[in-house]
Amino acid sequence: MKILILNGPNLNLLGRRQPEIYGSKSMEEILGDITRAYPETEIEYFQSNHEGELIDALHRAWLHDNVSGIVFNAGAYTHTSIALADAIAAVEIPVVEVHLSNVSAREPVRRQSMIAPVCCGTIAGFGADSYRLGVEALLKMLCKE
Amino acid sequence: MKILILNGPNLNLLGRRQPEIYGSKSMEEILGDITRAYPETEIEYFQSNHEGELIDALHRAWLHDNVSGIVFNAGAYTHTSIALADAIAAVEIPVVEVHLSNVSAREPVRRQSMIAPVCCGTIAGFGADSYRLGVEALLKMLCKE
Amino acid sequence: MKILILNGPNLNLLGRRQPEIYGSKSMEEILGDITRAYPETEIEYFQSNHEGELIDALHRAWLHDNVSGIVFNAGAYTHTSIALADAIAAVEIPVVEVHLSNVSAREPVRRQSMIAPVCCGTIAGFGADSYRLGVEALLKMLCKE
Amino acid sequence: MKILILNGPNLNLLGRRQPEIYGSKSMEEILGDITRAYPETEIEYFQSNHEGELIDALHRAWLHDNVSGIVFNAGAYTHTSIALADAIAAVEIPVVEVHLSNVSAREPVRRQSMIAPVCCGTIAGFGADSYRLGVEALLKMLCKE
Amino acid sequence: MKILILNGPNLNLLGRRQPEIYGSKSMEEILGDITRAYPETEIEYFQSNHEGELIDALHRAWLHDNVSGIVFNAGAYTHTSIALADAIAAVEIPVVEVHLSNVSAREPVRRQSMIAPVCCGTIAGFGADSYRLGVEALLKMLCKE
Amino acid sequence: MKILILNGPNLNLLGRRQPEIYGSKSMEEILGDITRAYPETEIEYFQSNHEGELIDALHRAWLHDNVSGIVFNAGAYTHTSIALADAIAAVEIPVVEVHLSNVSAREPVRRQSMIAPVCCGTIAGFGADSYRLGVEALLKMLCKE
Amino acid sequence: MKILILNGPNLNLLGRRQPEIYGSKSMEEILGDITRAYPETEIEYFQSNHEGELIDALHRAWLHDNVSGIVFNAGAYTHTSIALADAIAAVEIPVVEVHLSNVSAREPVRRQSMIAPVCCGTIAGFGADSYRLGVEALLKMLCKE
Amino acid sequence: MKILILNGPNLNLLGRRQPEIYGSKSMEEILGDITRAYPETEIEYFQSNHEGELIDALHRAWLHDNVSGIVFNAGAYTHTSIALADAIAAVEIPVVEVHLSNVSAREPVRRQSMIAPVCCGTIAGFGADSYRLGVEALLKMLCKE
Amino acid sequence: MKILILNGPNLNLLGRRQPEIYGSKSMEEILGDITRAYPETEIEYFQSNHEGELIDALHRAWLHDNVSGIVFNAGAYTHTSIALADAIAAVEIPVVEVHLSNVSAREPVRRQSMIAPVCCGTIAGFGADSYRLGVEALLKMLCKE
Amino acid sequence: MKILILNGPNLNLLGRRQPEIYGSKSMEEILGDITRAYPETEIEYFQSNHEGELIDALHRAWLHDNVSGIVFNAGAYTHTSIALADAIAAVEIPVVEVHLSNVSAREPVRRQSMIAPVCCGTIAGFGADSYRLGVEALLKMLCKE
Amino acid sequence: MKILILNGPNLNLLGRRQPEIYGSKSMEEILGDITRAYPETEIEYFQSNHEGELIDALHRAWLHDNVSGIVFNAGAYTHTSIALADAIAAVEIPVVEVHLSNVSAREPVRRQSMIAPVCCGTIAGFGADSYRLGVEALLKMLCKE
Amino acid sequence: MKILILNGPNLNLLGRRQPEIYGSKSMEEILGDITRAYPETEIEYFQSNHEGELIDALHRAWLHDNVSGIVFNAGAYTHTSIALADAIAAVEIPVVEVHLSNVSAREPVRRQSMIAPVCCGTIAGFGADSYRLGVEALLKMLCKE
Repeated sequence: MKILILNGPNLNLLGRRQPEIYGSKSMEEILGDITRAYPETEIEYFQSNHEGELIDALHRAWLHDNVSGIVFNAGAYTHTSIALADAIAAVEIPVVEVHLSNVSAREPVRRQSMIAPVCCGTIAGFGADSYRLGVEALLKMLCKE
Repeated sequence: MKILILNGPNLNLLGRRQPEIYGSKSMEEILGDITRAYPETEIEYFQSNHEGELIDALHRAWLHDNVSGIVFNAGAYTHTSIALADAIAAVEIPVVEVHLSNVSAREPVRRQSMIAPVCCGTIAGFGADSYRLGVEALLKMLCKE
Repeated sequence: MKILILNGPNLNLLGRRQPEIYGSKSMEEILGDITRAYPETEIEYFQSNHEGELIDALHRAWLHDNVSGIVFNAGAYTHTSIALADAIAAVEIPVVEVHLSNVSAREPVRRQSMIAPVCCGTIAGFGADSYRLGVEALLKMLCKE
Repeated sequence: MKILILNGPNLNLLGRRQPEIYGSKSMEEILGDITRAYPETEIEYFQSNHEGELIDALHRAWLHDNVSGIVFNAGAYTHTSIALADAIAAVEIPVVEVHLSNVSAREPVRRQSMIAPVCCGTIAGFGADSYRLGVEALLKMLCKE
Repeated sequence: MKILILNGPNLNLLGRRQPEIYGSKSMEEILGDITRAYPETEIEYFQSNHEGELIDALHRAWLHDNVSGIVFNAGAYTHTSIALADAIAAVEIPVVEVHLSNVSAREPVRRQSMIAPVCCGTIAGFGADSYRLGVEALLKMLCKE
Repeated sequence: MKILILNGPNLNLLGRRQPEIYGSKSMEEILGDITRAYPETEIEYFQSNHEGELIDALHRAWLHDNVSGIVFNAGAYTHTSIALADAIAAVEIPVVEVHLSNVSAREPVRRQSMIAPVCCGTIAGFGADSYRLGVEALLKMLCKE
Repeated sequence: MKILILNGPNLNLLGRRQPEIYGSKSMEEILGDITRAYPETEIEYFQSNHEGELIDALHRAWLHDNVSGIVFNAGAYTHTSIALADAIAAVEIPVVEVHLSNVSAREPVRRQSMIAPVCCGTIAGFGADSYRLGVEALLKMLCKE
Repeated sequence: MKILILNGPNLNLLGRRQPEIYGSKSMEEILGDITRAYPETEIEYFQSNHEGELIDALHRAWLHDNVSGIVFNAGAYTHTSIALADAIAAVEIPVVEVHLSNVSAREPVRRQSMIAPVCCGTIAGFGADSYRLGVEALLKMLCKE
Repeated sequence: MKILILNGPNLNLLGRRQPEIYGSKSMEEILGDITRAYPETEIEYFQSNHEGELIDALHRAWLHDNVSGIVFNAGAYTHTSIALADAIAAVEIPVVEVHLSNVSAREPVRRQSMIAPVCCGTIAGFGADSYRLGVEALLKMLCKE
Repeated sequence: MKILILNGPNLNLLGRRQPEIYGSKSMEEILGDITRAYPETEIEYFQSNHEGELIDALHRAWLHDNVSGIVFNAGAYTHTSIALADAIAAVEIPVVEVHLSNVSAREPVRRQSMIAPVCCGTIAGFGADSYRLGVEALLKMLCKE
Repeated sequence: MKILILNGPNLNLLGRRQPEIYGSKSMEEILGDITRAYPETEIEYFQSNHEGELIDALHRAWLHDNVSGIVFNAGAYTHTSIALADAIAAVEIPVVEVHLSNVSAREPVRRQSMIAPVCCGTIAGFGADSYRLGVEALLKMLCKE
Repeated sequence: MKILILNGPNLNLLGRRQPEIYGSKSMEEILGDITRAYPETEIEYFQSNHEGELIDALHRAWLHDNVSGIVFNAGAYTHTSIALADAIAAVEIPVVEVHLSNVSAREPVRRQSMIAPVCCGTIAGFGADSYRLGVEALLKMLCKE
């Protein structure tokens, strides 16, 4: 079973950028933890600051890469991108929305998610552990199908 | 370690009420699954249709019951109750907000959570599994402290 | 056939409270009129100032009391309670929304009904006669089924 | 005693137009039922798709036709016509607003009634029976005066 | 010089309708006063409750009737009719907007005028005298051209 | 095959009214062009400044006139008339919405169309050619059925 | 009989400031015209750019100066000053609101008048003639009392 | 003379809950201070986290307990409860709204009070002293009657 | 200890202006009552209809006059003046906001206070007694420091 | 004459993605149809999921590629991209906005087009035929110039 | 060449008021720096807490003082004064808006500038240096003319 | 010291695109002027129409290029991009926002800046000189640190 972890804008800076908000773990460490926790699951990772490349990645996962589920932290595009929401609706793979911080407790502009209505679920506020919970929720859901 | 699972209005009908939306598992089955999954954790359960009793339960968990964390599905009060938000802010116990359905994909009035800003995180859309993920997220968080 | 007449907050003061707005008939007199008008129908009555008790009453009517239809004046909760709307949607009994006064002609906050979308119909503005019209509309509807 | 039943735009299609929403009874059948139910009441009927003709009809009912009460389904003009509201306020006859469908459960634009504040009451959601309930409510009200 | 005084919905009831708001002078008396005050001006009068007929009247005044200016009380259509505003913009005759009552002091929905931006000016709140002031303002304006 | 071209308020002035916005072609010339372009199609034409007459025309086209499709420029009623939208939804004939000017580039009030959601498509901004494109789109659509 | 003509901010520049909008007549000329037109009326004039001085002037007119009516062009304070509205409501003298330009045809912020609800009427859009029409309306109104 | 001090949700935690915001004085100490300050006044106290019980308490104070005035801190229900506002309007006893903190300086949702329009006055921001000032204001007001 | 009582626009008319709303006591009488009630406190008084002079007065109280606290009724500027709010924030003296009437029960525009967030507390609705309660609240607060 | 057909995000999936909404024709088939219909016109095609590449394509068409007109389906960027609107405004080539589905009949967020005000016209709701109608409208328009 | 530096409310406290926000440089020091930097330019300075005096100052600069350009920090009036915006539009001198702090990063009410649309440009966020940059921008602009 | 001048979408057309709005100077000329004015400062330049590449450029400036400050004209992304705002907040380099035109004087959608709250200051409206003023403001700021 193959899971894609997809990261949106500015998440390449994880561990360096405002650690008091986003934590000091780098994405490499987070991916290492997840790989160790789910050894029989193939974990792929892709990050981009470009809205278009994230849409391309969603298409590719569906058309070519045989991905079973996607854990997606769309970063700031969460709040503005109808195009990403359209892409999630178009690909026939379940997508779980994750966030490091509790976005509901931040500025008003971050309280609205354009992609949530087309994702199957949301996990927010547990720092690096949000990704692992997303993988776990996805695996559980895929097993039931 | 003691975890309180707290359920708000209409959740006593779980398993009977609109199963196509809320699933056919009863709360008893869900609690059974969680108890089996985390045998060394003490799981308490309380449900009420009364906003005031939910506030009382939050106070009691803090003042008398030695609860370490709370998994809270506030049902429809999620969207209207500042009083519950105040109670969560007042008690010094981490609270995780959970929902069975993906509330972001429903009517506009359900897209706003009054309690999210004072919870530590949110898990929504995974049906009965949302509760288990909530307990897991809470345990992870409590271990790190 | 059993009909439940359900009254929300402050309606226990009927006949005493601002009679120039709400009329001088007490609820007892109104129930007497209805019982006389529909002798072959069993009329039950419940009032509470507690949102939670009204939810409990709706559940009970469905699960235990074998009620065929409900005439519901939710008072001020009409405008604020998503939890009552959820309860009406959950119980599989037709509910008619009634109001003594013409709520559309009052303050803006009273022009929005949270429960109307899940009720089968609305009757407002005919004073005490609103209840009787509600019972009649309900009986007609139940006969057709 | 003379009652005018007044119908607004598109209600001439009743029975033919979208029967799954508006029912399959024609207005003729509805009027027949009402005439039989209230044999001692004179029932007049007027329908128009023209806002201006509806205003004219309201004026005429007051100035020339000796009408005691009006049951008015203003159709879509309910939500847009201040001119009809002014006419209802001007004529010194009680007007009851009726709707076939439960307008509160439809699109947001249909949740606002311009005429409700100047009507004495509202009945909505009981299909063809809404008209009969309107006549009954009106007769009761006129008897008390 | 010919001036058209144009009246919108419900203004045919002037003098009979709510005299405490609209005064007890009939339109005939008002027209008599104006004719006497401006004997060398030809005064035409048209009233309709139909939005379409008012549009027709504006077209006719421009295309056929050789009218030099229009004093227009659009009644409730003032607040809702973009079609009347378009007609005023289309005809190449100056139009003065008048109101009997001080519309700014009434309900919020009456504070917005759709036609004001395409009229040359507005006179409101002087009762029957609003019409005479409108004629005077128009004559002054036409003389200067 | 019969197509109705239906024109709303102020469009009788086409060619005379503000030619810098609406062009200098009269409706007669436009109809001539269309008749020449689609000789095997029967083209009917109706214009009115009255909202009610436009509703009547839509009903008549469906009930009596055996019209296959309608090209409708509702003029200013586009932005205000729910009654016209209801009529389009009621008649079982495809309706194409057309506009001479690019309404999206004009004042905010013109950016909302009440009728667009019940039309099958929209063509706007191509001047007189909008009508011909509407007829062509309609014919194509009717052929495919 | 004494009439106060009161001018708000920037109106001291009349005749010099943007003559294409406000005309090229100075306030002196306007006052001259009015004095000639109503020789038996005493005309007082006061202008200030200070909100406080305009409030003082309204108080003084009522308490000390024996003024019978006020023609008030509040300039930009029209749209922002609740304090001026309170002063107009406090003094027991009729106040007519006037504007040189047709404020309804300008930016949205100029479409709301804070003072209109407490004035007896409004005259806008007739350039310098707005003041004269204001005096005339006021005299007519005072005669009737 | 009997005064009821009524406290809403979460105020039972006073002195323990976020003392940096709400102060460290418990409600017992506050009541002691007031009793000492006004020895000839009978002070009653009631607190509940239940909206329904607060409504019951307001009814009881009027119908049975012979209370002359009420000092009410409705806590978070201040901002959401129309039912409490209705109860205050129904009981014929003056009610003074009090708040410990300066609610205007907090989140936007706390800037609106549903109950203020039906209270006789408001005192906010003086910590524990707000209650004493409320009692004093009430006594002064009752003496004048 | 010196307390400044500061009054905004139109409050110079107190006792004369709409006594049914604002009471019939003049400011002189109110100041007399306060002086008698707190003989050891020095009471200063300043009123102006000018926003700028009120700002100057706040600056002067801080920089030159050795004032310990301010009781401020900003009148209509309460709802519009960010400049006064800035001045209150700038001066390092506690300011108590007072109002004669219960502003929350009046028009919507009066429900928002620009200055409340920078004042230490608010007292509204107790007529002339609001000033005395303001002085008392201020003295209590200053004693505790 | 050269026409560019430009497609925005997710339109590369045409024919595969939700065929019940977007139809089962691929873009290749649509382009084939158009090429056959207008043999003397050179048709260029470009698609991208990247907002920036679409901007680049618009610039290139103007600066280097000698394109006479553009038919643009901006997909989801229609509703969010001011940058694309700026690019359309900058290039001196007419652009026609097209949509497969009737966007006015979908979710509210899709009812606003950022690019419509700078396009010369809009065609929406005719499925694959929208592109052909767009090319035809453009050719007609270019011929007239 | 003469430049007027104009300061609005509370800016007389510069250097004393909240130095952590506004810096500790007094206006005298800032003016000294500017005079030294642009020795051949005549620098005038005026500050007032009165909206009216600022309007007077703008008029005077145009009519009497032969000022070539104005650097204006309108303080809190920036966000509320249409009258100042009118004055800037009326005087035929270029005005540059400056702010000490980055107003966009502060409370929502400070994000809207009434005067920006009539100024030629804006400089904000550079502390005392904002004034010098304003002078420099103005001189550059005046040289080009 | 190294300064990065960063330009967003459509700014590669500078000098060619609508010169009456954006001026006729190309970016090369502007950069030449700046290099001559600040010979001891290293000026880097980057432009992209791609939001993602601008984010990459901000990251690169911080992580690799040893840039001391950034002058950023984000073009249309100013008003929509939370992702760019996040990137500016993440990189620890001061950023000055510049605009050629006075964005406050343009359409409402351009009055809101998403990036202003995380920039240190803003300069807008001085055409090509905005860039030079931005560099100067930045240098001054960097010297003080």
